[in-house]
Amino acid sequence: MTTIRCTVMQTPSPDTLEVLRDVVITIDESGTITAIDDGDAGIAVDRDLGSSVVVVPGLIDAHIHAPQWPQLGTGLDLPLEQWLFDNTFPLEAKLTDPAFAAVVWPDMVDTLLRHGTTTAVYYATISVETTTMLAAVCAELGQRAFVGRVGMDHPDGTPEWYRDASAVAGVDASMASIEQISQLGSPLVRPIVTPRFAPACTDALLEGLGELARSTSTISQTHCSESDWEHGYAFERFGRSDTEALDGFGLIADHSVLAHGDHLGDADFELITRRGAGVAHCPLSNAYFANAVFPARRALDAGVRLGLGTDVAGGARPGVLSQCGDAVTMSRMLDEGVDARVEPSERGVTGSRISITEAFWMATLGGADLLGVPCGLLEVGRQFDAVAVDLDAGTSGLRRWEGVDDDARTFEKIVRLAGPTDIAEVWVRGNTVIS
Amino acid sequence: MTTIRCTVMQTPSPDTLEVLRDVVITIDESGTITAIDDGDAGIAVDRDLGSSVVVVPGLIDAHIHAPQWPQLGTGLDLPLEQWLFDNTFPLEAKLTDPAFAAVVWPDMVDTLLRHGTTTAVYYATISVETTTMLAAVCAELGQRAFVGRVGMDHPDGTPEWYRDASAVAGVDASMASIEQISQLGSPLVRPIVTPRFAPACTDALLEGLGELARSTSTISQTHCSESDWEHGYAFERFGRSDTEALDGFGLIADHSVLAHGDHLGDADFELITRRGAGVAHCPLSNAYFANAVFPARRALDAGVRLGLGTDVAGGARPGVLSQCGDAVTMSRMLDEGVDARVEPSERGVTGSRISITEAFWMATLGGADLLGVPCGLLEVGRQFDAVAVDLDAGTSGLRRWEGVDDDARTFEKIVRLAGPTDIAEVWVRGNTVIS
Repeated sequence: MTTIRCTVMQTPSPDTLEVLRDVVITIDESGTITAIDDGDAGIAVDRDLGSSVVVVPGLIDAHIHAPQWPQLGTGLDLPLEQWLFDNTFPLEAKLTDPAFAAVVWPDMVDTLLRHGTTTAVYYATISVETTTMLAAVCAELGQRAFVGRVGMDHPDGTPEWYRDASAVAGVDASMASIEQISQLGSPLVRPIVTPRFAPACTDALLEGLGELARSTSTISQTHCSESDWEHGYAFERFGRSDTEALDGFGLIADHSVLAHGDHLGDADFELITRRGAGVAHCPLSNAYFANAVFPARRALDAGVRLGLGTDVAGGARPGVLSQCGDAVTMSRMLDEGVDARVEPSERGVTGSRISITEAFWMATLGGADLLGVPCGLLEVGRQFDAVAVDLDAGTSGLRRWEGVDDDARTFEKIVRLAGPTDIAEVWVRGNTVIS
Repeated sequence: MTTIRCTVMQTPSPDTLEVLRDVVITIDESGTITAIDDGDAGIAVDRDLGSSVVVVPGLIDAHIHAPQWPQLGTGLDLPLEQWLFDNTFPLEAKLTDPAFAAVVWPDMVDTLLRHGTTTAVYYATISVETTTMLAAVCAELGQRAFVGRVGMDHPDGTPEWYRDASAVAGVDASMASIEQISQLGSPLVRPIVTPRFAPACTDALLEGLGELARSTSTISQTHCSESDWEHGYAFERFGRSDTEALDGFGLIADHSVLAHGDHLGDADFELITRRGAGVAHCPLSNAYFANAVFPARRALDAGVRLGLGTDVAGGARPGVLSQCGDAVTMSRMLDEGVDARVEPSERGVTGSRISITEAFWMATLGGADLLGVPCGLLEVGRQFDAVAVDLDAGTSGLRRWEGVDDDARTFEKIVRLAGPTDIAEVWVRGNTVIS
């Protein structure tokens, strides 16, 4: 049992900022919060974080490509297909080398933890070995993670030097990856079935991976209706939407993670919601590869499960907090439109805005609900995955000003400005992983 | 004389990345670069920055509101007018208090320097006293700055508790501010004539400040055609565009800084270019207050002088590098459009993209040319305003990977990812101001 005295800011619902001022959080050996009491209740306190710190729930990156880490922040001038074949597939292929993976994975996981990412949903590589290595690094450094060996076998959508040899070989490799990750025995890491996206997979592989997810009770992830091209591709190949096609393969199920979804229609949202699947919204990446803004307001209102993703390296920044700011910014662009030469009434889609509270909810409780993990909110019964933000650290521009800032403004500053220099401590499952 | 051995990355023109690998830069007592020689030329070196550091020109923030610093990162859900009257004017009024200014100004200038902002163009307050204090803080901490007392007297566009008592009083105060800043005798700080924007100023004040700029050979700044409302306001009040009206008051002149300009037409661009004025493009702020994306591609092609601004606190982040990333991102949104339900061919304005090189040029040499200051590029005859970026510092996600990164990718990583944790040293006028 540990007790921590602190002030908490969090979002129990998309439109609610909850402030738990000066409370004592009791955490048991399994990392579960067993009590949250008033700071004056006389409970013995192991640690008092003081008045300059605010604790927020740990951040959940619902979509990130681990083997693209070395190209973070680069190549974003290229069209998607060229970016994949010229930059990304060659780099991912390098990450099938255990020696290179042994350098990249710890650098990435450590950096993400410093940004407050307590849970990450990874696309790893096509290699079972380096995928398991990633899971082991997450377990060792203390990050909660879903780690997916990438299935991709389609001769048209993948290069011959970076693909599964056949659909059967792909399903077998994903099966082996599930077994190896499970054998790590870590309470933090879990496998996730990961067909790259429909254009990279044959029907047989999509079918086989859908069945593998079902038979092993493993959740799945893939990309869905990210761009005009991908959205149109599904209609050409399957005669129906990407969502409907993936559903036919058993890949739209409870807690399935669909990355991007910028071009999803209302019927797609309805099907996704009915299945209990959801979307990993990756706002910054979308500006480069999606041809449009994800309608986050519409998705929220439709009750779609929603998390936020960095989509590293399609997204150029490593932290989920900066994605919160970007999600709000992009929703404003959709709301207002972009071209000053068009009449204001015709320019955007009025009513598309989301708030900073809604974005933060996606980054925490929304993501937890999407994945089915008991974190994302500091309440009794959930795991203590949390981030301590020092309001007086300074260099990021984050700072409280007496007589200027109230709780809502302090919260907005944390979300829009906090970075590694402000993050004083990070906990996953009750354990300090960054301090 | 000082000599520094290092590798430089910079943009002598919008579409050129120049790498000066392993050179020795000689800097005289006035901070002027007197020679750049090959590292092997046998010149005695005072300092060798080593191979893990890249030096880039110091960053120029061409538009920032100093008294809005305490509300950085907040209030962006409000419409502009409510944001001004409920949040911003009350806060700016507080910053007429020398005691509060004495706390805020050093915190802000220090933070900006840590982000690599070696030159800033400030809107200060309506108070001569706290405006001079800001100039003095810049001089003391070593930041190059243009500091403007804000003129605003219009009874409809300003609150009675935060405005100049009359046009005459406003011109007198701005005159006094120019004198006081000049009397500081610092080679770093200069006054700038600053009518807030047309809606906040009577014709008499605009006329008087235009004449003051001319008679004292002081450059000017104001906001111009930022939003639909401001753009339309000028036609209503003056019967012509904001640019044409400001030109009539003498406020479009050589090196005049026009903030935002999202709604400028081609004729406005032509007039601005003819006068030698230019635009401070503030991409992140524009997503919240401008109703459209600034057509940076069109402005570049028209030869308009262009710098980048944070527009703190309409812009939620303090550094200019992050504005480079945002400028590219926003240009992509304009290029592609935002609404997936519109046909791709009708969605955006194809041909609107700018590159990371062009954005960085705006943030350095473009800004220097806009302001008429001899920095923005490390070449003989210019001042040594520079930022040393440590490529191995780590926490931001910036890191070189052997066999993956070439010069262009390393440069893109610096621009998209570098923050205070990567910035090892900052020089202004040859003097180290952050280390």
